[in-house]
Amino acid sequence: MIILGIDPGLTRTGYAVVRSGGPPTALAVGVISTDPGSDTPVRLAELFADLSSLIADHRPDVLAIERVFTNRNLQTAISVGRASGICLLAGAQAGIPVYEHSPTAVKLAVTGDGRATKAMVQKMVTKRLGLDVTPKPADAADALAIALCQIQTMRVVAT
Amino acid sequence: MIILGIDPGLTRTGYAVVRSGGPPTALAVGVISTDPGSDTPVRLAELFADLSSLIADHRPDVLAIERVFTNRNLQTAISVGRASGICLLAGAQAGIPVYEHSPTAVKLAVTGDGRATKAMVQKMVTKRLGLDVTPKPADAADALAIALCQIQTMRVVAT
Repeated sequence: MIILGIDPGLTRTGYAVVRSGGPPTALAVGVISTDPGSDTPVRLAELFADLSSLIADHRPDVLAIERVFTNRNLQTAISVGRASGICLLAGAQAGIPVYEHSPTAVKLAVTGDGRATKAMVQKMVTKRLGLDVTPKPADAADALAIALCQIQTMRVVAT
Repeated sequence: MIILGIDPGLTRTGYAVVRSGGPPTALAVGVISTDPGSDTPVRLAELFADLSSLIADHRPDVLAIERVFTNRNLQTAISVGRASGICLLAGAQAGIPVYEHSPTAVKLAVTGDGRATKAMVQKMVTKRLGLDVTPKPADAADALAIALCQIQTMRVVAT
C-alpha cells in the first residue's frame, strides 16, 4: 500500500510517499513551495497542480494529512486552513480516502511520546525508514512522520 | 462587466452574479450547500464542482470574496479558510482575478456605515438592485453585498 503524507502550508507543504508492507520505504520526499510574492489564488492553484501531479505520478492508496493546529493565531489558521483545503480537495478529486492526524498523534505514533521535540521526531523517522541522512527541511520530515503515523493507525485498526 | 460575489463557508457558500454598467442587475443569486454529514474532502469537492459550474455558466470577469473574519474562533477560521481556499482556487483555475473585501468594507460600501446591521445591509441590497423581495438566506444577500462592494471599488479606482 502506498501512503502520501502531507504537512500542509501555503508557503511550504511537506510531502512524503511511503510504501507499507514489510519495513516502510520512502519512495519520495520533498516540499512544494509557493512564492510569497504571488497572490494567494495563484499560490493555491500552484499547490493544487503540484499535488495533483504527485498523486498522478505515485498513485497513493491513502492520503494522510496533519490536522491544522488550533493553538496558532487566527491569521495562520486561515492560511493553513486554505492550504489544507486544497490538499483535501486533491485527495477527493483523485478518489483517495483522506485521514487527518493531530500533531500529538503523529508524535506519539513515531516516537512513543506525544510531546516529543522536532529533533526526536526527525531522529525516529530517519531510523525507522533506514535513511542515511535526516530529511530536510522540517516540513519534509514531518510529512514522513505523518505517513508513518497513518501506517501505524492502519495496523491498529487491522488487528 | 459581470461580477461573481462569494460569501464562503463549508456548510453554506452564498453566491451572487451581478452585472455592472448602468444600474447593477442581479443575474443569479443563491447558496451552495454541502451535507454536514459528509466527510470534509467530499464537501470541498462538491463546493469546487458547483462553483466551477457557476463560473462556466456565467463567465464572470471578476470574483469578489469576503475576507475571512479574524474575530471568530479558530475551528471556524480553519473551516471557513478551507472553503475560501476552494473559492480562490476556482477563480485562479478559471483565470479570473479575485479580490477580497473585509466585512467592514462591504458594509461601508453598501450602506455608508461600516458597522451596519445585517438587516440594514439586506435592505440596501434589495433597494440598490431593485428587487421585489429581500434575498434569502442571509448568505445570498451577503454575496450580493460583496458584489456591490466590488463594483463600487472598481468605480473608485477608475475615477
